[in-house]
Amino acid sequence: MKRAAGMAMSKLATLTAAEIAALDRTDPLRARRQLFEIPKGLIYLDGNSLGVLSTAARQRAATVVAEEWGQSLITAWNVHGWMDLPKSVGNRIGALIGAEAEHVVVCDTTSVNIFKLLAAALALRPDRKVILCEQSSFPTDLYMAQGYVGFAAGGAALKTVPAAAVTAALDETIAVLLLSDIDYRSGARRDIKAVTRAAHKAGALVIWDLCHSAGAVPVDLKGAKADFAVGCSYKYLNGGPGAPAYLFVAPQHLAAVHQPLSGWLGHAAPFQFEPDFRPAGGIERMITSTPSVIGLAVLDAALDAFDGVDMGQLRAKSLALADLFHARVSARCRSLKLATPLAPEQRGSQLAYHFEHGYAAIQALIAAGVIGDFRTPDLMRFGFTPLYLSYAEVARAADVLADIIATERYREPQFQVRRKVT
Amino acid sequence: MKRAAGMAMSKLATLTAAEIAALDRTDPLRARRQLFEIPKGLIYLDGNSLGVLSTAARQRAATVVAEEWGQSLITAWNVHGWMDLPKSVGNRIGALIGAEAEHVVVCDTTSVNIFKLLAAALALRPDRKVILCEQSSFPTDLYMAQGYVGFAAGGAALKTVPAAAVTAALDETIAVLLLSDIDYRSGARRDIKAVTRAAHKAGALVIWDLCHSAGAVPVDLKGAKADFAVGCSYKYLNGGPGAPAYLFVAPQHLAAVHQPLSGWLGHAAPFQFEPDFRPAGGIERMITSTPSVIGLAVLDAALDAFDGVDMGQLRAKSLALADLFHARVSARCRSLKLATPLAPEQRGSQLAYHFEHGYAAIQALIAAGVIGDFRTPDLMRFGFTPLYLSYAEVARAADVLADIIATERYREPQFQVRRKVT
Repeated sequence: MKRAAGMAMSKLATLTAAEIAALDRTDPLRARRQLFEIPKGLIYLDGNSLGVLSTAARQRAATVVAEEWGQSLITAWNVHGWMDLPKSVGNRIGALIGAEAEHVVVCDTTSVNIFKLLAAALALRPDRKVILCEQSSFPTDLYMAQGYVGFAAGGAALKTVPAAAVTAALDETIAVLLLSDIDYRSGARRDIKAVTRAAHKAGALVIWDLCHSAGAVPVDLKGAKADFAVGCSYKYLNGGPGAPAYLFVAPQHLAAVHQPLSGWLGHAAPFQFEPDFRPAGGIERMITSTPSVIGLAVLDAALDAFDGVDMGQLRAKSLALADLFHARVSARCRSLKLATPLAPEQRGSQLAYHFEHGYAAIQALIAAGVIGDFRTPDLMRFGFTPLYLSYAEVARAADVLADIIATERYREPQFQVRRKVT
Repeated sequence: MKRAAGMAMSKLATLTAAEIAALDRTDPLRARRQLFEIPKGLIYLDGNSLGVLSTAARQRAATVVAEEWGQSLITAWNVHGWMDLPKSVGNRIGALIGAEAEHVVVCDTTSVNIFKLLAAALALRPDRKVILCEQSSFPTDLYMAQGYVGFAAGGAALKTVPAAAVTAALDETIAVLLLSDIDYRSGARRDIKAVTRAAHKAGALVIWDLCHSAGAVPVDLKGAKADFAVGCSYKYLNGGPGAPAYLFVAPQHLAAVHQPLSGWLGHAAPFQFEPDFRPAGGIERMITSTPSVIGLAVLDAALDAFDGVDMGQLRAKSLALADLFHARVSARCRSLKLATPLAPEQRGSQLAYHFEHGYAAIQALIAAGVIGDFRTPDLMRFGFTPLYLSYAEVARAADVLADIIATERYREPQFQVRRKVT
């Protein structure tokens, strides 16, 4: 049996159940599935929005609460190393995104960390004022930049351009480019190295938003000579709902960066209770306040699922799962229009389709036990998570979707009801 | 048997074991102890630093992880009301601090929320530039104000004065006073209503830091005509290590407040993914990003312990516990110097003593099963948490401390070793 990766779409569309089962048998990541607790019968294609629960994460949640907090109480800060979690978990995430050790820290939210890094970057380019973003960025990136511009001294300004115009807009006015490597809607992928090189050539810095890549798409921050990065940990990293975010500062910038959210745990000597802020020497200077211990511990345990994983194998399976899905969907659903570039180097770990009845179709899919999600105005999104999805599940999901489209089951009234969170 | 409240110190110092047992038998809050899971034999006088675990919190941690996240996955945002937690938990805290419904929200950390409120307050007083703080504030309050001043447009400045000089310093330059109602070291208490009135008279706003009062000391934000407040939830509220913080904005300010950490969940229509930030109409505008669901759920359950509690009874027991402790300690330990004012209206729910060998004495106490804490340079702190401490425990703790001081056991070498977190 040939590996799925590289198979022609026409062949993928017509694979038999036995052939798909063979793909799963020879999948080098197949054993990882057992680390997760996925509801029986559910096919989960939304790990790009909220990852699934692992057994290790569930057990660690119980331990950190009942044993560490419950039994050790205040002494747990020392006994259980709570104060080290932002850096120790940061190092584990750093290893997945090609960061140098001791240059990633877990704290706050992606949005708050964007604010810190905008301030840090603009201070490093005092003769420039402009933050450059894509118009189609995930909104919080734009909103945080707008909040920053409205508040910061020095006359910062925000410039937004269409996705295709980003590199052309890099001129001598741009202090920092804030950009996602994977578009949250289309799943289109940017070349971190090439864009960083273009920005540096123009004298600008780059903050990479890795929310939609870390844990599914190989990232090499060091190789790309990246300046800064942020990301959440509740998507492909499976850290749990509202898990703390992370940020990265490159070694060449760390000693010079300052950020305005200078709380006590970013201080060089937090327990000296000095009246004036002095930033810590290392990446701790980017921390603001008391770590979210329970969330950090759960995330720490969730990362166990990545121990020993070959990111190349992970990526190959991600692409193959998406290819299998798209081959079967495109062969049967002419009314769906793919929004994702198919060239492997141009996409992340999700596929998105424009469909006029996309919202209702996603509700019908969920009712049928296949979880995808919807993004306004008309996008159906499907995430492919190589650690816990099988080829058989992905083929089955494609078939269920095709049935819903063919039978127009999405027209049933119960699928039209709008929910609060889409 | 007389109630402990109001008993003379000389009488409290000489109560017999039977008399103390009688105090516990007639304690109207005695049944609350059973809601908590306190290690057997441990006397915990550090609930002013990290509160204890309740059974409800332990169970909710398991449920939110294994059932809500594990089984409902992305649909839990709707099915389990995750998106409502910041406001629903905020309302529960609001009820404990005398805030109007829908005017408290749980999000981020105390430090980050201070930053938001400084920005909001300064924007409401555009003709004034000065943030006023006590020199002896908890350092993160000062550090966040320093960070704000260094980055914000408009020429904000920070003025710090000794505690006794705060009201005298309220002049026409002060835009906002940032102040704790309870001093984190001495436990001295400010009159929120009187200080707020003085600030308003001078045309200034006040941000109250309630970290050391909420859940132990009655707070009446509405009655005090307070403008803003922040606080953490891991002390007397027992929300767990690094539990999310809260903030309050008074009704008269809410429609006009803006803050620079304007992330997507502060938007009027977050799931419309609009390119420009439009603040939500209500207290949600103060939210920045994705709620820390696990931490919020644990905190929500922890607050069950306050359901139906009479805050007047809580306060009376808090004062009585502290009186009992101090009567026994002061009768035997002449080398300890009380740092806390004894007048009930001038103290919170902790006592602090200056003692040259304070660090070592606290280590010796911990080794003997009594948990207090130490604050540099020489302060021993003891928190009194009326929901789960008995009179017998507090009397026993005082006796253990007196033995350590009398025998100079704190001089043993193992008690001199400095730990990372003090």
